Amino acid sequence: MFSGSIPALVTPFRDGQFDEAAFRRLVDWQIESGSSALVPCGTTGESATLSNDEHHRVIEVCIEQTAGRVPVIVTPTHFSTQVCAQRSRRAQEQGAAMVMVMPPYHGATFRVPEEGIVEFYAGVSDAIDIPIMVQDAPASGTVLSAGLLARMAREIEQVAYFKIETPGAASKLRELIRLGGDAIEGPWDGEEAITLMADLDAGATGAMTGGAYPDGIRRIVDAYATGRRDEAFDHYQQWLPLINYENRQGGILSAKALMKEGGVIDCEAPRHPWPAMHPATRAGLIEIARRLDPMVLRWGQ
Amino acid sequence: MFSGSIPALVTPFRDGQFDEAAFRRLVDWQIESGSSALVPCGTTGESATLSNDEHHRVIEVCIEQTAGRVPVIVTPTHFSTQVCAQRSRRAQEQGAAMVMVMPPYHGATFRVPEEGIVEFYAGVSDAIDIPIMVQDAPASGTVLSAGLLARMAREIEQVAYFKIETPGAASKLRELIRLGGDAIEGPWDGEEAITLMADLDAGATGAMTGGAYPDGIRRIVDAYATGRRDEAFDHYQQWLPLINYENRQGGILSAKALMKEGGVIDCEAPRHPWPAMHPATRAGLIEIARRLDPMVLRWGQ
Repeated sequence: MFSGSIPALVTPFRDGQFDEAAFRRLVDWQIESGSSALVPCGTTGESATLSNDEHHRVIEVCIEQTAGRVPVIVTPTHFSTQVCAQRSRRAQEQGAAMVMVMPPYHGATFRVPEEGIVEFYAGVSDAIDIPIMVQDAPASGTVLSAGLLARMAREIEQVAYFKIETPGAASKLRELIRLGGDAIEGPWDGEEAITLMADLDAGATGAMTGGAYPDGIRRIVDAYATGRRDEAFDHYQQWLPLINYENRQGGILSAKALMKEGGVIDCEAPRHPWPAMHPATRAGLIEIARRLDPMVLRWGQ
Repeated sequence: MFSGSIPALVTPFRDGQFDEAAFRRLVDWQIESGSSALVPCGTTGESATLSNDEHHRVIEVCIEQTAGRVPVIVTPTHFSTQVCAQRSRRAQEQGAAMVMVMPPYHGATFRVPEEGIVEFYAGVSDAIDIPIMVQDAPASGTVLSAGLLARMAREIEQVAYFKIETPGAASKLRELIRLGGDAIEGPWDGEEAITLMADLDAGATGAMTGGAYPDGIRRIVDAYATGRRDEAFDHYQQWLPLINYENRQGGILSAKALMKEGGVIDCEAPRHPWPAMHPATRAGLIEIARRLDPMVLRWGQ
C-alpha cells in the first residue's frame, strides 16, 4: 500500500530542451526530502508540452535516477484504450510501481460514455500487474461519480487508487470509501493539497502535490497518520498560505520558481506557449515561502 | 491557391490495427472522385486514438499513395509551439502541401492567452515554407475572433487559410474576409458542410468535409464556383438530408459506415473507447444515402 506525501515532478527545461542533469538533481532532492513516491510527467510536469519521445525519456530518467529508492508512479494517459494499455505495459516493464490514468478525453468536446470508461480501465488493467490510480481531475472534463469509481475498484482487478481533485473532494472521498470499502486501497488528495485537512478527515491516505515543499506536506500527513490530528492542523494552518498561493496564484510554475530560487534546478521557464509567471506573482510566492523556511530554498545553497 | 472539395480521411482499422491496404484504396477512391486535396489524421481520422507512431505512419502512407496527384494537408497540432513546429517541418519534408493547425489546447482546462496563440502560430510559420490553415473548431475550446484571425493572416507569413467550423461560421467568414482582405487566401467551410450554402455566400472557397460523398459536395461547390448559384442551391437542397444526418446523427463514423457499405474499406469499427454507431442510426444513414445514389455505394462493387 502506498501512502504519504507524493510529489508530482516538474520537468526542467534549458533553452527549451529537457534538462536531464537538473531533473536528476531534482529526483535526488525529492527522495532526500522524504517523499513516499515520485510522479514524473503529470500535469505539473507540463506533460502536454512534451513530445512523445520526450515523455518516455523523462520517465526513463526518473526511474533510472530513483534506482528503487522509492516507487515511481507513471502517467500513460491516452484517449485510446489500446494505446493507453500499451503505454501502461511499457511503464511496468520500465519499473513503474503504479500507473495514474485519467479517463479518456480529448480537447473541449470529445468524451466517452460511462460504459466506455469502465471498458477503458478494464483494458488497461488487463495489460498490467501493477495498481492503477484513477486521476479524477477537472482537466478530463469528465464527471466520475463516487458510485462509478467504487464499482471500478470492485470490478476491475488493478484499479485500487484514486486521486480526487475535483470540487467537493472530501465529500467524494468519504462517499467513495463508504461505497468501495476494502477495494479502495488508496484514497488520495491532490490539487496542491488545498483541501488536505478536510480530505484527511474524510479518509485520504496520500497527498499528491506540486512537490516544492514536501517537508511541509509531510509534517501534516505524518502527524495525521500517527493520530496527532491537532498537530496536523497546526502544520496545515502554518503552511496553508503557501499551499493557497500555489493553488490559486502561481499554479504549476510555483514549484519551478521555488526550486530555481533554491538552486535545485537552473531554469524555471515553462515551455511555450505556457505563460511564464508574472514577476509580481513570483515575488509574492517567494515572500510567503521565506516565512516558512522550506528545505527547497536551502538545499541547493 | 487551394479550393474545392477537400475530404478529411477516415482511418480504417482491422482488428484494432491501422489497415494500410484499405487506406490506400480509400486514397485512390478519393482522388478518382474528384477531391481537390486530402487530409489524413484529422478529427474524422480518429487522430485522438492513434499513437504517435501510427499518426506519422498514416500521414506517410497518404502522401506516398497520393503520389502528387493532389495536395495533402497534414495536421501536426500539438500543445507545444516547439513540438508543433517540428512536426510541421517534418510534414513539409514528407511532402505536405499545407498544415492545418488548431490553437494550443489540452483537455477541458488548459488554454493559452491571445498573445501566446499568436506566438504559437508565428513559431510554426517560422519553421516552414508551406501555408498554414488555422482550424477554428469547438474541440479546441478556444475563441478565436475574426479580428485575431485577420491579424494573424496579415502578420504571420504562412498563415493564409482558415477552416471555420464554429457556430455562426458564415458571419465569421464574412467578417474575416472584410478584415483580412487579400491576406485571406482560403476562407473555408467545415463541419460536414452543414452550413455550406451560407458559407459559400459569405465567400468560402473550399469545403473540408467527412469525405464519404465528394461527388455530392463537388456538385455544390463546382456550380457555385462557376457562377451557377441556383444550381448550387438545388444540389445543396438535394444532398442536405445526408449532410444533416452525418453532422447531427452519425458523426465521424458516418463516412466509415458508407465506405464499408460500398466496399471502399473492409471494417468500419472505430478504435475503443470511441462508441460504435447504433445499428438504427446506421440504418437511417444508409437509407438516406441510397436515395442519393452516391459513388461511395457503387465504387467498390
